[in-house]
Amino acid sequence: MTRKVTIRDLAEAAGVSVTTVSQILNGKGERFSLDTRRRVHQLQEEMGYVPDFNARNLIMKSAQTIGVLVPNLGNPFFSMFIRGVQETSRERHFIPLIFGANHDEQLESYYLEELIKRAVDGLIIASASITAEAIDNILKKNGIPYLLIDQNGGPSVDRVRINDEQGGQLAADHLVALGHQKIAVVMPDEPTQNLQIRLAGFKQRLAEHHIDLADSAVTHSEMTKLGGYQATKAVLAQHPTAVFAINDETALGLMRGLHEQGVSVPQDISVLGYDDIDLDEYVVPKLTTIHQPVVTMGQQATGLLINRIQDQRQAAQLVDLPVDLRERESTAPLK
Amino acid sequence: MTRKVTIRDLAEAAGVSVTTVSQILNGKGERFSLDTRRRVHQLQEEMGYVPDFNARNLIMKSAQTIGVLVPNLGNPFFSMFIRGVQETSRERHFIPLIFGANHDEQLESYYLEELIKRAVDGLIIASASITAEAIDNILKKNGIPYLLIDQNGGPSVDRVRINDEQGGQLAADHLVALGHQKIAVVMPDEPTQNLQIRLAGFKQRLAEHHIDLADSAVTHSEMTKLGGYQATKAVLAQHPTAVFAINDETALGLMRGLHEQGVSVPQDISVLGYDDIDLDEYVVPKLTTIHQPVVTMGQQATGLLINRIQDQRQAAQLVDLPVDLRERESTAPLK
Repeated sequence: MTRKVTIRDLAEAAGVSVTTVSQILNGKGERFSLDTRRRVHQLQEEMGYVPDFNARNLIMKSAQTIGVLVPNLGNPFFSMFIRGVQETSRERHFIPLIFGANHDEQLESYYLEELIKRAVDGLIIASASITAEAIDNILKKNGIPYLLIDQNGGPSVDRVRINDEQGGQLAADHLVALGHQKIAVVMPDEPTQNLQIRLAGFKQRLAEHHIDLADSAVTHSEMTKLGGYQATKAVLAQHPTAVFAINDETALGLMRGLHEQGVSVPQDISVLGYDDIDLDEYVVPKLTTIHQPVVTMGQQATGLLINRIQDQRQAAQLVDLPVDLRERESTAPLK
Repeated sequence: MTRKVTIRDLAEAAGVSVTTVSQILNGKGERFSLDTRRRVHQLQEEMGYVPDFNARNLIMKSAQTIGVLVPNLGNPFFSMFIRGVQETSRERHFIPLIFGANHDEQLESYYLEELIKRAVDGLIIASASITAEAIDNILKKNGIPYLLIDQNGGPSVDRVRINDEQGGQLAADHLVALGHQKIAVVMPDEPTQNLQIRLAGFKQRLAEHHIDLADSAVTHSEMTKLGGYQATKAVLAQHPTAVFAINDETALGLMRGLHEQGVSVPQDISVLGYDDIDLDEYVVPKLTTIHQPVVTMGQQATGLLINRIQDQRQAAQLVDLPVDLRERESTAPLK
């Protein structure tokens, strides 16, 4: 078997010392001849030498690494979020280590601990099931900068804030403007804080239009396609003319369920989602939704976290991001 | 700001030496009293001390880490693959570092280099655009075990092999059995090796039924929903009664495009996909497809790679995985 090419191998091949190679490769080789510098760089390429980061890491006390924990890589919302994280990480010369916890609290704790063992410089936690206790016990005690997205765990120092209240209001405004009054909601049993705020905005705006959203009008389901699908009968039992699904995956599952029950969307029931995942444009009918700027969220979260890593003493950073309605084919005026 | 809790802090709090703490936490504390051992473990928990992995790593020469490179985290096929990777990694006490390269060759090389800098123990590369040259130059020269999935880069020592030829044959059998003879294909312009084999199996089986698949019947598109959508007009120009889309994402985009052109699936045109992503069950009509056991692929690939990491001298490992037809609603007998 071959083994990893070392700096020693490269130095030997170039006929110079390890220190010389190290200085040249770290851009501090001005004092060596152009010929030597060229030879070292050329041999590096030919031999496929890649500097060992772990050794450097112990010296530099920074691996230039951030950990990113999301609940579900299978939801396009999070793959789009990660695209944003990757873009900004690259610009700032950091590497994002990505973990999807499949909504498993135990797996989340495990990854969290492994990330800290690996001395990540900071963490973005977009995972709902992490507890405030875990954050206090693991992150705060170890002084690791972190940023929470969509959390129950209390605010982090820095925040990327999506206006969920406004999102809920826009959802209500849209359905009310179409003439709907009998409205149902599908959302999880134990909603995260952002979902609670979203629902509060929705209810408050309905109330302003003298429409009461009874507790019985809220069907509980997991925030997945399957969850939305399984909620179908409970939703139909409410005889709504419009449904607000708390995220797009739920809405898409519900639309399939309604189709199987012979219910036409939007002719019989309007369905409104939330997130604006890429899939919305491809399903039949296209899904009307509240757009969250999720790629931007990923970019901004990463930028703020890296700022914090590089200067832990700076003032708290806050970014507010807007939401807006994307009207497509799944909602229609009440007949 | 707080700082990371160190082993020194813990030793001080416990009133013992750093060596004592280290031995106890590494399960080698038999010679210390039960009371001391309990105190150290309890304080570890209370203080939130997590051992520093990078320091251990340099000593142990293994970070128990594998790198996983996929072309597109947004395709459910790859998020399901990663689910399998995560499951087996956890069982085997490895951590998978996941990177989605968004079909960007430059980004792939960048991640590959960063992974090697971080001294990953091995790599799973499910990304199509990596070149045989990059593999030779970077992986082989550094003696890093790797496993390729769906590649052009030539076979790796160990292989998880999906029978793409059989997949193509099953696709042809299904469409022919339904009476279709005018068949179109949608696939990328520069297909990876597995796709070439898939197409070869498809054509060969059609030929056995005396059906010729003309080159003009193959429309080229990216393997994304958008790619499938954009291929719609070129597909319709062939006047097929059935279309074989080389993956499900392509099929879903094409189905949306056909809907917009007033073409009903499967009444006017049958659409057959490949992969069996979770979405297939939720779209209207449900997508008929060739099932790939992708979670199992992720599990097996990870198992083989870790076997190889733990014993680089063992014989080449080969796992063959079957494919099968999942008949749903998007294909129907020729009228």
